[in-house]
Amino acid sequence: MRAAVLHGIHDLRVEELAAPEPDPRQVLLRIRRAGICGSDIHYFEDGRVGSFVVTAPFILGHEVTGEVAAMGEGVDGLCLGQRVVVNPARQCGQCDYCRSGRGNLCRRVRMLGSASTKPPTNGGFCQYLAIGAEQCFPIGPEIDDETAAMMEPFAVALHAAHRAGSLAGKRVLVTGGGPIGLLAIIVARTYGAATVALSDPVENRRAMAAKVGADAVLDPTAAGFSDEVARLTGDGFDVMFEASGSPPAVRQAFEVIRRGGTLVQIGSIAQPEIALPVNQLMVREIQFVGSFRYGNVFEEGVRLLAAGRVDLRPLVSDVFPLAQAPQALVVACQRDRVVKVQIDLN
Amino acid sequence: MRAAVLHGIHDLRVEELAAPEPDPRQVLLRIRRAGICGSDIHYFEDGRVGSFVVTAPFILGHEVTGEVAAMGEGVDGLCLGQRVVVNPARQCGQCDYCRSGRGNLCRRVRMLGSASTKPPTNGGFCQYLAIGAEQCFPIGPEIDDETAAMMEPFAVALHAAHRAGSLAGKRVLVTGGGPIGLLAIIVARTYGAATVALSDPVENRRAMAAKVGADAVLDPTAAGFSDEVARLTGDGFDVMFEASGSPPAVRQAFEVIRRGGTLVQIGSIAQPEIALPVNQLMVREIQFVGSFRYGNVFEEGVRLLAAGRVDLRPLVSDVFPLAQAPQALVVACQRDRVVKVQIDLN
Amino acid sequence: MRAAVLHGIHDLRVEELAAPEPDPRQVLLRIRRAGICGSDIHYFEDGRVGSFVVTAPFILGHEVTGEVAAMGEGVDGLCLGQRVVVNPARQCGQCDYCRSGRGNLCRRVRMLGSASTKPPTNGGFCQYLAIGAEQCFPIGPEIDDETAAMMEPFAVALHAAHRAGSLAGKRVLVTGGGPIGLLAIIVARTYGAATVALSDPVENRRAMAAKVGADAVLDPTAAGFSDEVARLTGDGFDVMFEASGSPPAVRQAFEVIRRGGTLVQIGSIAQPEIALPVNQLMVREIQFVGSFRYGNVFEEGVRLLAAGRVDLRPLVSDVFPLAQAPQALVVACQRDRVVKVQIDLN
Amino acid sequence: MRAAVLHGIHDLRVEELAAPEPDPRQVLLRIRRAGICGSDIHYFEDGRVGSFVVTAPFILGHEVTGEVAAMGEGVDGLCLGQRVVVNPARQCGQCDYCRSGRGNLCRRVRMLGSASTKPPTNGGFCQYLAIGAEQCFPIGPEIDDETAAMMEPFAVALHAAHRAGSLAGKRVLVTGGGPIGLLAIIVARTYGAATVALSDPVENRRAMAAKVGADAVLDPTAAGFSDEVARLTGDGFDVMFEASGSPPAVRQAFEVIRRGGTLVQIGSIAQPEIALPVNQLMVREIQFVGSFRYGNVFEEGVRLLAAGRVDLRPLVSDVFPLAQAPQALVVACQRDRVVKVQIDLN
Repeated sequence: MRAAVLHGIHDLRVEELAAPEPDPRQVLLRIRRAGICGSDIHYFEDGRVGSFVVTAPFILGHEVTGEVAAMGEGVDGLCLGQRVVVNPARQCGQCDYCRSGRGNLCRRVRMLGSASTKPPTNGGFCQYLAIGAEQCFPIGPEIDDETAAMMEPFAVALHAAHRAGSLAGKRVLVTGGGPIGLLAIIVARTYGAATVALSDPVENRRAMAAKVGADAVLDPTAAGFSDEVARLTGDGFDVMFEASGSPPAVRQAFEVIRRGGTLVQIGSIAQPEIALPVNQLMVREIQFVGSFRYGNVFEEGVRLLAAGRVDLRPLVSDVFPLAQAPQALVVACQRDRVVKVQIDLN
Repeated sequence: MRAAVLHGIHDLRVEELAAPEPDPRQVLLRIRRAGICGSDIHYFEDGRVGSFVVTAPFILGHEVTGEVAAMGEGVDGLCLGQRVVVNPARQCGQCDYCRSGRGNLCRRVRMLGSASTKPPTNGGFCQYLAIGAEQCFPIGPEIDDETAAMMEPFAVALHAAHRAGSLAGKRVLVTGGGPIGLLAIIVARTYGAATVALSDPVENRRAMAAKVGADAVLDPTAAGFSDEVARLTGDGFDVMFEASGSPPAVRQAFEVIRRGGTLVQIGSIAQPEIALPVNQLMVREIQFVGSFRYGNVFEEGVRLLAAGRVDLRPLVSDVFPLAQAPQALVVACQRDRVVKVQIDLN
Repeated sequence: MRAAVLHGIHDLRVEELAAPEPDPRQVLLRIRRAGICGSDIHYFEDGRVGSFVVTAPFILGHEVTGEVAAMGEGVDGLCLGQRVVVNPARQCGQCDYCRSGRGNLCRRVRMLGSASTKPPTNGGFCQYLAIGAEQCFPIGPEIDDETAAMMEPFAVALHAAHRAGSLAGKRVLVTGGGPIGLLAIIVARTYGAATVALSDPVENRRAMAAKVGADAVLDPTAAGFSDEVARLTGDGFDVMFEASGSPPAVRQAFEVIRRGGTLVQIGSIAQPEIALPVNQLMVREIQFVGSFRYGNVFEEGVRLLAAGRVDLRPLVSDVFPLAQAPQALVVACQRDRVVKVQIDLN
Repeated sequence: MRAAVLHGIHDLRVEELAAPEPDPRQVLLRIRRAGICGSDIHYFEDGRVGSFVVTAPFILGHEVTGEVAAMGEGVDGLCLGQRVVVNPARQCGQCDYCRSGRGNLCRRVRMLGSASTKPPTNGGFCQYLAIGAEQCFPIGPEIDDETAAMMEPFAVALHAAHRAGSLAGKRVLVTGGGPIGLLAIIVARTYGAATVALSDPVENRRAMAAKVGADAVLDPTAAGFSDEVARLTGDGFDVMFEASGSPPAVRQAFEVIRRGGTLVQIGSIAQPEIALPVNQLMVREIQFVGSFRYGNVFEEGVRLLAAGRVDLRPLVSDVFPLAQAPQALVVACQRDRVVKVQIDLN
């Protein structure tokens, strides 16, 4: 099979490899579409994501959709040809975190297309992928490949929404208009937020946010920012999704959030520490909560997509065939210009 | 001022009365629009609502919107001419229920247009109403009178949604397609339910439900009902709003709800008792929860209406001037034909 | 090995059987102590538990503690000789219920010592038991065998407490003073209830309840019952655990529970239906919630036992050696006289 | 009446003043016992608490208990001679925060014995105090004055426990062994924590913590600290109460807390900012939540005290008559030596 293998910084090669075989309880997927995530870009640009360093060549990619091409023993609930979306994180299913519904915190989780293991775990920028049947969620023809390959980042936003508690009728601010921030806007709208604003210093992103449903877009560096917040919310936002990973955005959150409000951190932060006004958190009873990947939201996401409750296609800005995976990565690196770049394997 | 006073069964008279004066912390509202609720109909048809019997003439009506015409001492946050929606339930603000955010359970609550007190408490089918300033919520021109007078029943549906926990991504069934059931459909859609179905034996109501956003409409007396539930949900509905008050609907709930699902009782039930399969509630870990009137949802409702997140106007089927209030009540009694009948006082 | 095999109604035989072998990811436990549960009694007395009918001989028992005697492949976190308590319910770990932390609702769950499968699944009234390593929770010497074999019913009470929401500072009533009701009293005290009362018409059980920590004991058939509830609670109980399975107790709950209060159904109910005042549930916003077996509470229970937070030994009223298992079952049937009967296998 | 009036830094004078008169809905309390809080100490030592600067003489004190000596109009539920505990924070009861059960965040709250208003609001180090009837909670003879005057700081700890979510069966760490930290230990034990540890660099405080029920006491500056945390908890604490206000304690929290764990900030922090590892909060899904004063916990606290669930008397280290209020303040300043200093007004 053909696969896009990362050999080093800026060294992605499309190669011929042997297709994997499914183990018991696994299926073999023929990949149809795959999206490029920020972590793929980090591996490609920096050879690492945080402390996970690329020490051996591996196949990138974990935002995938495909169809069942073969099944190992003991698989039920799936059949040949079934199209599926994929949860790329395999949880142990047995530890205290998994048993209590917080499998995303499982210490034995194993992620597709990741250098967190040694050797790295292969991902899905390839024609065939062997994966646990329980990581696959069936979809019907009403969900196209483009949308289906957005399920994984959509799951990040859905999980963050649940971490925030209810968004119903709330005033919501998203900071950072990259793919996850835009998806947070879409989810906040879908889940009933009465006001959804985006704050981002980059004009392109603000325009994109307005396009996917933000009621207001703010430039956090502009003079009238605080007045605009007051005009929109009175006493501040009920809920904030911090999707930029930028220290000034995290700090600013404590100024624009309402007493009793909730700040959800989704964006990865490169800096080891950020100076924060903790006394404000105390006297205003703020909840500052982390949101990491996704819990059990894939079936929920499929239901929303199947019912047409959300449209994720405006976020797909560029599509390349597998043979042009290296170019796709280069384009994906231009973050202020593109939103989501996908690889088409059909 | 002119007012529609109930003197007895089917005896509603439009009379000239002295306008009230606002006490300290009260405002005098000039009523602009008022809706007819099921309890108004009960008083008109039966002379009672449950144990509340009409023992003296009083002004009906509690679904009102108006503008501030005068202010008592100590009112802040409002000004003359301000249009408002009204929470007709005045809570004490000091008891354990009020302090813990459950003022709808306050034992000292006093309701507009109700025979729960002796003498009855006058309501809002009249030109001027004196009411606590804290019961008034300002609205802007983006909310018209027709919509504003729907705020009270909308609040019932919003409160029920919060009693259900999150609806985000859930499969929801509403039983009973009267005004509250239709509003529950609208709220479930707005708050992110992935599937919203209505079940009602009356065809007109099913048609109306489809019009306001139900994804599916079911006849609970039809042969294929169970198959249709299975087709829509697999394992059953996550959340049910029982808005019919009909014993068969309550009982059927235990068949169509999923393990771990939530059944919210909104509809009043005339029968003193209903036989229920309690062991099913236990082994399937169902939550069966009551929802009574509304908690603190008026500002939330105003935000949703102001942002255009919901359109309540399709529910208003008939409008009469105050002089024709008796006719309005007669029409409102035809429950299978009309949805919401309003009285226009402008 | 020796095992107590149920052949039919009142026909329990202690026989010599081949010891099982552990499969991969299983351990072989040498059972040290086992308790007799209500379902064991039902199988013994009636040949069935609800719809689960005994169609072939099987080993009873699911309240067990033992030590690891052998390990299958792929077991980590356990070692030979390790004493453990056992979750007798094996969940699939992969379905939506399991992934969302509600594994007790898993449709593929398999229970020790149960006729829910065909053929029945053997239980733990025997010397050796092969069981999933993930169903075993290590304990230290500070937890004796007598206490360890109480972990399973203790888990039922812990799970019910979580289903109730917080008990901290609450006024709690338990109806039914059998083993589960007594454990609910202990858990309510341990988890901070300010008042814990028991209601049971049987005097022996009231006395036992007072012994294990009930602040008040009530006879629900006595004339002064309502006055006593008012004296204890003012407006009614915040939380009720219905552990009797008796229809009058379920009905009485709606009279003694406070507005906004929570009624948790733990006891199995033989009657298919109970007539309930559903309108009261609505206007008083009661939560009526089922509690089935136990979720992820075994580690929590071990922590409480290891720290000496609870003392479960007063509930063990009789202990028999395995050879006298038939006599143990006969004694366990005298429910008003005994609390928990155990079988000692050391 | 006699009153302890603060005139400036270290200038507290016991003077004769006119006793106040109760307004409508107020009662006049004869104060029986009053505790000295950290904020009283700050006013006495520094002439300010944060941004609240003493600009005019006022009576200190807000931890008070007394008996009703006179009643204004419209008071119900209280009678002359009734002993009460006092919530010193008067909320408006009408705003969105109050209505939603979060009255501690009310913007119009007014606090006894505080320079947050101009002129300052008098407190309770005096013989007679006029206060809202709804701020008074009746107590019986089973609660002595010493305990009753501890209700206010006890309320701080109770509120923090509710902010943490359930403590039932959890592993809990308290950082900072001052009065609030010790009360947090007591509450954590009472509400069912399986492990309660204290971390404080001061040996006296660790000894006191062990005396009031901590299962383990840790010195955060000791070499073996991390090993001890691992020994006690395995993967870290489920819940932490940060009651020291010390930046190193807040930072250390992120090392000792478990994935998915909750950090509750109770202690005031003098520093405007603390550098925190926000990425850790994100990837480990920590909840960092503020806890400010107390919500609706006074009735709950009275229930616990009346039932003898907690014993707060060991925390009262010194008692002075009102005439010696200045000496009492001086002693209270010796924070490493004393716990709670009270003024007896009987």
